[in-house]
Amino acid sequence: MANIEKRGPFNYDNDPERPSPHLVIRKDQPFNAEPALHVLARHYVTPTDEFFKRNHGPIPDLSADTHTVQVAAPALAGTPQRTFTMADIRAMPRLEITAALQCAGNRRDGLNKLAKVKGVIWAAGTISNATWAGATLRDVLLAAGIPDVSDPRVQHWHVAFEAVGDCEEDVVYGSSIPLWIAMSPHRDVLLAYEMNGRTLTRDHGFPVRVVVPGIIGARSVKWLSKITVQPQESASFYQQRDYKILPPHVSIASEDLTEWWPRLTALQEMNVQSVICEPEENELVRGGPVTIRGYAIAGMAQALFIQYVSLDGGNTWALAELYRTTAPLDRQWGWTLWSYRVPRITNDAEIVCRAWDTAGNTQPSEPTYNYRGVMNNAYHRVRVKPNAKC
Amino acid sequence: MANIEKRGPFNYDNDPERPSPHLVIRKDQPFNAEPALHVLARHYVTPTDEFFKRNHGPIPDLSADTHTVQVAAPALAGTPQRTFTMADIRAMPRLEITAALQCAGNRRDGLNKLAKVKGVIWAAGTISNATWAGATLRDVLLAAGIPDVSDPRVQHWHVAFEAVGDCEEDVVYGSSIPLWIAMSPHRDVLLAYEMNGRTLTRDHGFPVRVVVPGIIGARSVKWLSKITVQPQESASFYQQRDYKILPPHVSIASEDLTEWWPRLTALQEMNVQSVICEPEENELVRGGPVTIRGYAIAGMAQALFIQYVSLDGGNTWALAELYRTTAPLDRQWGWTLWSYRVPRITNDAEIVCRAWDTAGNTQPSEPTYNYRGVMNNAYHRVRVKPNAKC
Repeated sequence: MANIEKRGPFNYDNDPERPSPHLVIRKDQPFNAEPALHVLARHYVTPTDEFFKRNHGPIPDLSADTHTVQVAAPALAGTPQRTFTMADIRAMPRLEITAALQCAGNRRDGLNKLAKVKGVIWAAGTISNATWAGATLRDVLLAAGIPDVSDPRVQHWHVAFEAVGDCEEDVVYGSSIPLWIAMSPHRDVLLAYEMNGRTLTRDHGFPVRVVVPGIIGARSVKWLSKITVQPQESASFYQQRDYKILPPHVSIASEDLTEWWPRLTALQEMNVQSVICEPEENELVRGGPVTIRGYAIAGMAQALFIQYVSLDGGNTWALAELYRTTAPLDRQWGWTLWSYRVPRITNDAEIVCRAWDTAGNTQPSEPTYNYRGVMNNAYHRVRVKPNAKC
Repeated sequence: MANIEKRGPFNYDNDPERPSPHLVIRKDQPFNAEPALHVLARHYVTPTDEFFKRNHGPIPDLSADTHTVQVAAPALAGTPQRTFTMADIRAMPRLEITAALQCAGNRRDGLNKLAKVKGVIWAAGTISNATWAGATLRDVLLAAGIPDVSDPRVQHWHVAFEAVGDCEEDVVYGSSIPLWIAMSPHRDVLLAYEMNGRTLTRDHGFPVRVVVPGIIGARSVKWLSKITVQPQESASFYQQRDYKILPPHVSIASEDLTEWWPRLTALQEMNVQSVICEPEENELVRGGPVTIRGYAIAGMAQALFIQYVSLDGGNTWALAELYRTTAPLDRQWGWTLWSYRVPRITNDAEIVCRAWDTAGNTQPSEPTYNYRGVMNNAYHRVRVKPNAKC
């Protein structure tokens, strides 16, 4: 991995139209936008146009007729290799799953309040839930002659992905996941060509993207062109330098960033998270009844166990109603939407929420600073005022 | 699952000798004891005699010459079935791993301070780390003709274990884990016949026990006699009623326990945990230097990322030194021991520790009550006084 100067400027004239009026644009070029929270809470499956958009360069304009995905394992004896057309991928068994993707930088604004962090300052909308369909990565790897992880030669190996297209911090966008996750029939890793029942849009990776349930969004590489099965993680900037939790004393002014990067593990699995979507901060709410709504997602792909809501800043808690798919609990890749109906809100209130997953992990009450502003899952708090006129 | 009256009394005359002077006995019959914390912190691999002991009845006295383990899947077409002798199991490929086992009730005392909980009131010593060797459960299941989870018929199935011997709350001790965990070459589930380089002792499951890394100790069934691969979880009391997190408002006086049990998920994966082993609560410490020592274990079998220590009740934090195996980070089944050397402790101090795993999960600052007192991973706090004479 080279220490890359920021590349560009790139030409964004061919980026697609984005018709949604609900997107909060954090950066125009590359296009980075998150939906308004009330939009997220109102759809179990996020409409494609509203789904958050996280980019590092212009949106590629590819043809499904000519695009290919190359799979190789150059370090393996016999060097398995195969190039898949989109017709090859579509001819494989089709799996449909509902899975949430969440950027590791979701809720970065909360950490940026503690001290300056590096990255797009996202609020709590860099998460969305969709129905994806495609071939499983497992089937594609096996078809290319890659052995399963019961083969001791590859047991601790990784699967590296590369995208088509320019990006700012490296030659191409890249990332990797452990091979055991890619090969697990339980984990449902997809090469997806459909989103919400339609062909993938350009913004979401047309003609084919990776979807890794339970793992930070950065590993679900869009515009996928190359898969390399290899003994080590991806050498990409986005694996080695970008999505890691630095210790809190390592600040943006520190001299020792270079020392820290190789010592830290690249983020993979998500932590337990929940957010209040409605009402929003400083919203004037009617006296009552008020329905509080939000989303939650379990840590490490285990099920969300329970969701609590507090109206008094966290002194007393009530159980929320949960809404999720009927998938088995250890395969709940989608988020859980939750709601809690309050008879009245008559005084200024601080609404707080927290979730537990089935392993007994819960959210911390206070955030802890890290330089890249990732994985903020502190209690989400919203202050509201009753509207005297209602 | 029947609502079993407590069975017994049983005859404990044939229980083995327990020579360790460091065990804190919580209950004599059945024998339940945890090591002193300073013993835990001083050995990366816990000596067998000091390893915590959690029992529900008398210790079986089995013969390795005649003992068998039966594997069956009666709900599967073709009804795979095989009975393994200990010689059969020893003839299979041997895997050695270092893995911590932790009772879901570890640190129950902290929850019992909030309100009365049900169960043996353990302190923070119901965790130990050992080197285990045996056949993998995966190899045993495959040898018995059980298909891998890539077979859609069994994808969401479970593996139920039964022990030999009387126990108080059910006819035999039983538990189950998801089949995908049993079959994963990554998860290293063992049928272990060795502990710390020697034949398993009777207290730890002679002649053969299950060891499920990353999962609560209750699933690592001792004196294993029967394995059933089946569509649903174990019907055992210990799966259906015992190791579940109830919501905080469900107390020991509640009428609605029966309503809650079937709605809740049986615990499997552990949450992120860390504990201060030295100095101990109210210990008189020398002014300085003082080395603070403890253990930590990552949630969900991910690596421990970092360990913090505070000397002022959690206002300011410092990084601890970590000690663990050289196993790959996503296969750190053993615990991490940590230490932090303080130049002096001159005033009364509240030492606090907290850990993060690589998914960004961390411990909550305060405990939350649950009726069975399980999965308490709140910040561990120890108050110490400087010894004026040193």
